[in-house]
Amino acid sequence: MFEVVFLGTGAAVPTRFRNLSSTALIFNGELFLFDCGEGAQIQFRKARLRPGRLSRIFISHFHGDHLFGLPGLLTSLQMAECTQPIHLYGPEGLAEYVDFHKKFARFGLRYPLHVVEVPDGSDGMSWQESGYQILCKPIAHRIRCLGWAIVENARPGKFDVEAADRLGVPNGPDRGRLQKGEAVELSDGRTILPEQVVGASRRGHHFAYCMDTSPTPNAIALAKGADLLIHDSTFKEGEEQSALQSGHSTATQAAHIAREADVHLLALNHISGRYMPFEEKELLDSAKAVFPRTVIASDLKRMTFEYEA
Amino acid sequence: MFEVVFLGTGAAVPTRFRNLSSTALIFNGELFLFDCGEGAQIQFRKARLRPGRLSRIFISHFHGDHLFGLPGLLTSLQMAECTQPIHLYGPEGLAEYVDFHKKFARFGLRYPLHVVEVPDGSDGMSWQESGYQILCKPIAHRIRCLGWAIVENARPGKFDVEAADRLGVPNGPDRGRLQKGEAVELSDGRTILPEQVVGASRRGHHFAYCMDTSPTPNAIALAKGADLLIHDSTFKEGEEQSALQSGHSTATQAAHIAREADVHLLALNHISGRYMPFEEKELLDSAKAVFPRTVIASDLKRMTFEYEA
Repeated sequence: MFEVVFLGTGAAVPTRFRNLSSTALIFNGELFLFDCGEGAQIQFRKARLRPGRLSRIFISHFHGDHLFGLPGLLTSLQMAECTQPIHLYGPEGLAEYVDFHKKFARFGLRYPLHVVEVPDGSDGMSWQESGYQILCKPIAHRIRCLGWAIVENARPGKFDVEAADRLGVPNGPDRGRLQKGEAVELSDGRTILPEQVVGASRRGHHFAYCMDTSPTPNAIALAKGADLLIHDSTFKEGEEQSALQSGHSTATQAAHIAREADVHLLALNHISGRYMPFEEKELLDSAKAVFPRTVIASDLKRMTFEYEA
Repeated sequence: MFEVVFLGTGAAVPTRFRNLSSTALIFNGELFLFDCGEGAQIQFRKARLRPGRLSRIFISHFHGDHLFGLPGLLTSLQMAECTQPIHLYGPEGLAEYVDFHKKFARFGLRYPLHVVEVPDGSDGMSWQESGYQILCKPIAHRIRCLGWAIVENARPGKFDVEAADRLGVPNGPDRGRLQKGEAVELSDGRTILPEQVVGASRRGHHFAYCMDTSPTPNAIALAKGADLLIHDSTFKEGEEQSALQSGHSTATQAAHIAREADVHLLALNHISGRYMPFEEKELLDSAKAVFPRTVIASDLKRMTFEYEA
């Protein structure tokens, strides 16, 4: 399973109800952060997440509402005496941003900080980590902006206990080896192959994050078949022109992306303070009319995703 | 009268109870901000202060917990369509900090931003504004750090109604002119001088802000006779060595400064997350033993200061 905690779900300016963009993901035993708007570290603490578990931070783009919490977070990890390596991903220029703050505010870091810049010309990158892949593709905002996906490796198929019984595979380590994909030789000399007792491999978890962006095929590519897509939903239906001009999406457009990508769940995010609560309901309803499995993100909301049966 | 709203009263790292350094002052019809730690703009909104009234921002020093909220605040003033001039005061280098963020996060400002840097070599500056003076002096931190005071011009003395009656000054505009310091000629030809009916001029309001700092004579100079001194109180009694090494004060040291400066009220601020609530009581008690008119700051606490009778 994986878990998502929305830390800030507002757009551009914090309101009394929504902080600036940041989302935590607990995946594969690691804690990731997507975007780091001002106040992210404060929300991080309110959500009772542990600084010592944070391992990777992904920055979509360099607008302040996604970025200005980063220097404070990096400083506070230091103050919390974190020693784990932090991998910081984002557009080209990110290292310059970090270095400026380290120098200007005179903070050193005792933990290893690895800054991974995606070159401006790149049309996407990926990194294979232990058990999962990190994917990145440019999405469609006013400035260079990157969408992200975390895709778990395929999991082994289901172990067919009946078939193993029928074949006379004894309970114990032999069954474990078969589950892991190894052939085993039984005491009577027969060789049992994994495919005789293990089903087809099953897809792993898949999380996608596409903010800020107008509708773009790269968002569909990142989210294809995902358990959860978090997508920009800064405008409401009828405001497509404003959305396009500012490099954002309407709730309805986000729903179309989710439908194209055939995701399990869409979370509308980057909710503008222009909208009153009843209008947020309109955002949600308009998206659900296109893609029913839609929720609207809210600060400190937690969501857990289990493997399909 | 003037009003103070503590926005963030913590030290170094935000806690669930205390945000990072920022204090609002409503003085003479203007809204000032002292320091701008991360989250200041969020607390500003929570306190229901109006962005359109903000006119002056004072930065003590360039440690992140006093500074990292500034780019977000400046951006949000823009988003709120503020048009009033903003005067931003702080140590040398402040303009570079603002310019870096404007360029990096690509925000322009439609309101006039006047950055006033206090040169590194300067041992103090002052500015006479309409009705009050702004004072600045270096205080004793690990890096260049400035203390601030806002000192209202002396107010005219009390009008002595009995004396005016006795002298036969008629009710009406003549009394107003005398109050303003002008001589008036009565219908019977006598000249009445202001000093015949108006008492000695009275001191105006005086606010002083000294964070972060070890005990220093400049804090006493800035706070001499103030209605309110907000002073660094990062450590508790017995931790003088740590306080000195890190450029901070104990609560007791803050109280000694307040006593030397003969202020009306001391507010302990920059309260460390190391202390549990019962230890915060110790901070307060140890200060009160030296200077009884002491309070401990807390987030979103508001205090109003009236003129003396």
